Amino acid sequence: MKGVSAIATARPQVVIVGAGFGGLEAAKALRRALVDVTVIDRQNHHCFQPLLYQVATAALSPAEVAWPIRHMLREQQNATVLMAEVVGVDTAKRRVILDRADPIAYDQLIVATGATHSYFGHDEWAEAAPGLKRIEDATRIRRSILLGFERAELEHDQAERQRLLTFVIVGGGATGVEMAGAIAEIARQTLARDFRRIDPRTARIVLLEAGPRVMPALPQDLSDYAERALARMGVEVKTSCRVTNCDKRGVDLDRGRIDAGTIIWAAGVVASPAARWLGAEHDRAGRVLVRPDLSLPGHPEVFVIGDAAAVFDEKGRQAPGMAPGAKQMGRYVGKLIAARLAGDSLPPPFRYKHPGDLATIGRRAAVVNLGRVHLKGFIGWLFWSLVHIYFLIGLRYRFLVAFTWLWDFITFQRGARLITEVPPQQRPSATDKR
Amino acid sequence: MKGVSAIATARPQVVIVGAGFGGLEAAKALRRALVDVTVIDRQNHHCFQPLLYQVATAALSPAEVAWPIRHMLREQQNATVLMAEVVGVDTAKRRVILDRADPIAYDQLIVATGATHSYFGHDEWAEAAPGLKRIEDATRIRRSILLGFERAELEHDQAERQRLLTFVIVGGGATGVEMAGAIAEIARQTLARDFRRIDPRTARIVLLEAGPRVMPALPQDLSDYAERALARMGVEVKTSCRVTNCDKRGVDLDRGRIDAGTIIWAAGVVASPAARWLGAEHDRAGRVLVRPDLSLPGHPEVFVIGDAAAVFDEKGRQAPGMAPGAKQMGRYVGKLIAARLAGDSLPPPFRYKHPGDLATIGRRAAVVNLGRVHLKGFIGWLFWSLVHIYFLIGLRYRFLVAFTWLWDFITFQRGARLITEVPPQQRPSATDKR
Repeated sequence: MKGVSAIATARPQVVIVGAGFGGLEAAKALRRALVDVTVIDRQNHHCFQPLLYQVATAALSPAEVAWPIRHMLREQQNATVLMAEVVGVDTAKRRVILDRADPIAYDQLIVATGATHSYFGHDEWAEAAPGLKRIEDATRIRRSILLGFERAELEHDQAERQRLLTFVIVGGGATGVEMAGAIAEIARQTLARDFRRIDPRTARIVLLEAGPRVMPALPQDLSDYAERALARMGVEVKTSCRVTNCDKRGVDLDRGRIDAGTIIWAAGVVASPAARWLGAEHDRAGRVLVRPDLSLPGHPEVFVIGDAAAVFDEKGRQAPGMAPGAKQMGRYVGKLIAARLAGDSLPPPFRYKHPGDLATIGRRAAVVNLGRVHLKGFIGWLFWSLVHIYFLIGLRYRFLVAFTWLWDFITFQRGARLITEVPPQQRPSATDKR
Repeated sequence: MKGVSAIATARPQVVIVGAGFGGLEAAKALRRALVDVTVIDRQNHHCFQPLLYQVATAALSPAEVAWPIRHMLREQQNATVLMAEVVGVDTAKRRVILDRADPIAYDQLIVATGATHSYFGHDEWAEAAPGLKRIEDATRIRRSILLGFERAELEHDQAERQRLLTFVIVGGGATGVEMAGAIAEIARQTLARDFRRIDPRTARIVLLEAGPRVMPALPQDLSDYAERALARMGVEVKTSCRVTNCDKRGVDLDRGRIDAGTIIWAAGVVASPAARWLGAEHDRAGRVLVRPDLSLPGHPEVFVIGDAAAVFDEKGRQAPGMAPGAKQMGRYVGKLIAARLAGDSLPPPFRYKHPGDLATIGRRAAVVNLGRVHLKGFIGWLFWSLVHIYFLIGLRYRFLVAFTWLWDFITFQRGARLITEVPPQQRPSATDKR
């Protein structure tokens, strides 16, 4: 007979679903509370998403930006980590339903399940235009970029060769800008001398943005700088440009078509199915509408945080789907639960504090917006690098990533140019026109 | 219309199939010859197989032991690298047949396609008991080992939990011994404090060897030492023990059965299909019987080297399937072709020189046989580490691997504990009894 796990223990059970920035921060905020914390994630690793594009562009290895969750929480004796797939929440019986494993009972629940790419109702584009959320997405995109060059080297037909060497990035936010800049570096520098039949420097890299300018979250001057820096690196930036279709051989735009070998989706996100699990009200992007203390209306014992929740600052602007917001929410809810269970006074409503925006465009080019302070160029790039090294977890990874960046900066190389797990139909071929 | 590539060029065309140790060394030996060298491999990377078990056991990342072939040959202006799948050789028309790409014409051909695992006629065991030859094999085995612990943490049934924590390695050669030692370290040290419901130290690690002792290629004293070192690390070594069946829930032996969650095949190899492509005579393991200059009987322009060839030393002993032999053969054939095309005198018949054997068993334990000199314990381990660092390619990787080993040595950690690309039916589950 199946039981419900942990129902017999005496301490309050806090269950956290999702070990992203929000979930982990909540778990840590509960480290001194007299509770049992159970962190459930379908992956065994926490992914440092701000550097995921560097895995997709062969600069870092997956293991440098993805760390075992249970290792990160090993010293926290009140925390248990389970690798399992959550398929629902029974808010009446207060338990989390797992796929093919016993349900987990909770007294307090934190849902921190994040977001995934949104194709604005065209999920059929996903196959042709992968997005970048998980480690597997990053290795898939890396494979596609590197295979583009490999196939072009085998190809005799000039038009097909040019198609294979065309890379389209859909979405001009931070991820899109960073991807475009990195692919330009690969083509113009890293691979420049590695081929004999093709010249990788002739690759065409196109960044598509539906709005009037790239990096719309930034002030105009930084946005302009980003566009100039991209142009200098040979990236074609097309603004006010809508994608009407994606297929395996290219993208259709509201004005014309671009044949492409690789399409990368960096355009939109949609929240995880948390709203569905909880039967909760949500906005158009699927984000759960939460109360000022981030709890679910009618369920003070259930909290939704990070990209899964719709949260606004005092001016009514939505908190962007970035690590700092998720961490702030995780810390807030962890402390609130600790205070509630200890009978202490509860904290005031959650208020999102925006720390700034930053994106790197390439070697010695980045944009940083800290409100009054705007940084760009080499200084911006240095600031960006230091901030990301600082937020990496553990000395080991700080050192390895710093070493790798320094090495690559000096040599123009990228150390993780691996093509693995190639599906049979994707093997390089000169005659394959699918 | 399809043409045959490169047929119009004037310089002799040397085609090398396979960019393992043998193929790469042959290409390098031809760097000053007035030839066009084309290296064809179905992967984009050369895999440093001696350290592949460290990827399988989460100590190193794939990119640390696998380097882009075209980057390794970028400075060699007469070399072209193609990522393509060879499906046959037309020795009459002198061309290599590719899958879905134009054939490649050759004047001189070097076949260096290596070997894969042999299940001694039981290929159906491959699904349950993966071997270790490619990067994908290594990440698959890593996933299986780490998922074993994750599933055990979710499991309530005591017997099933013990099965999930049982790891069987079939084959007591160097690979089997290294894998068993590494898994023992993971269970007893790396993961010791990371779980709450299970104690990883209770994992059972069994090394099966059909012969009377492990590391049969080594002298008796080193073989005995290896067995004692394994026992001290808690590995059960079963010698003179034959596997009669492998399935997803364990292995059947000639005496009894072991239920296991992970089975790793390190027992036998069989040569690539080179003999079939060439219509050549071969030994029982599929290795092509070559002439004393490593050429194919009747085809002085075709050479077979490395694990794909059956080569013997002056005492009639077969050259073992290890990197040094493949490199010696590659260098020999490269120089022979260069001499032949330059009209110089040809080198004497190939003679394999055995440099020695070495295997690491765990922290501070290794066996090294240099003929008269036998090393074991810490000294052996140090020697093993230095040799492998030395043979890594490029300063970058030497530094990264040395740093990683030093860090892991001090902290007992492993930096690449990633579970990725999990097929749906392999997701962790407590109730999954398939």
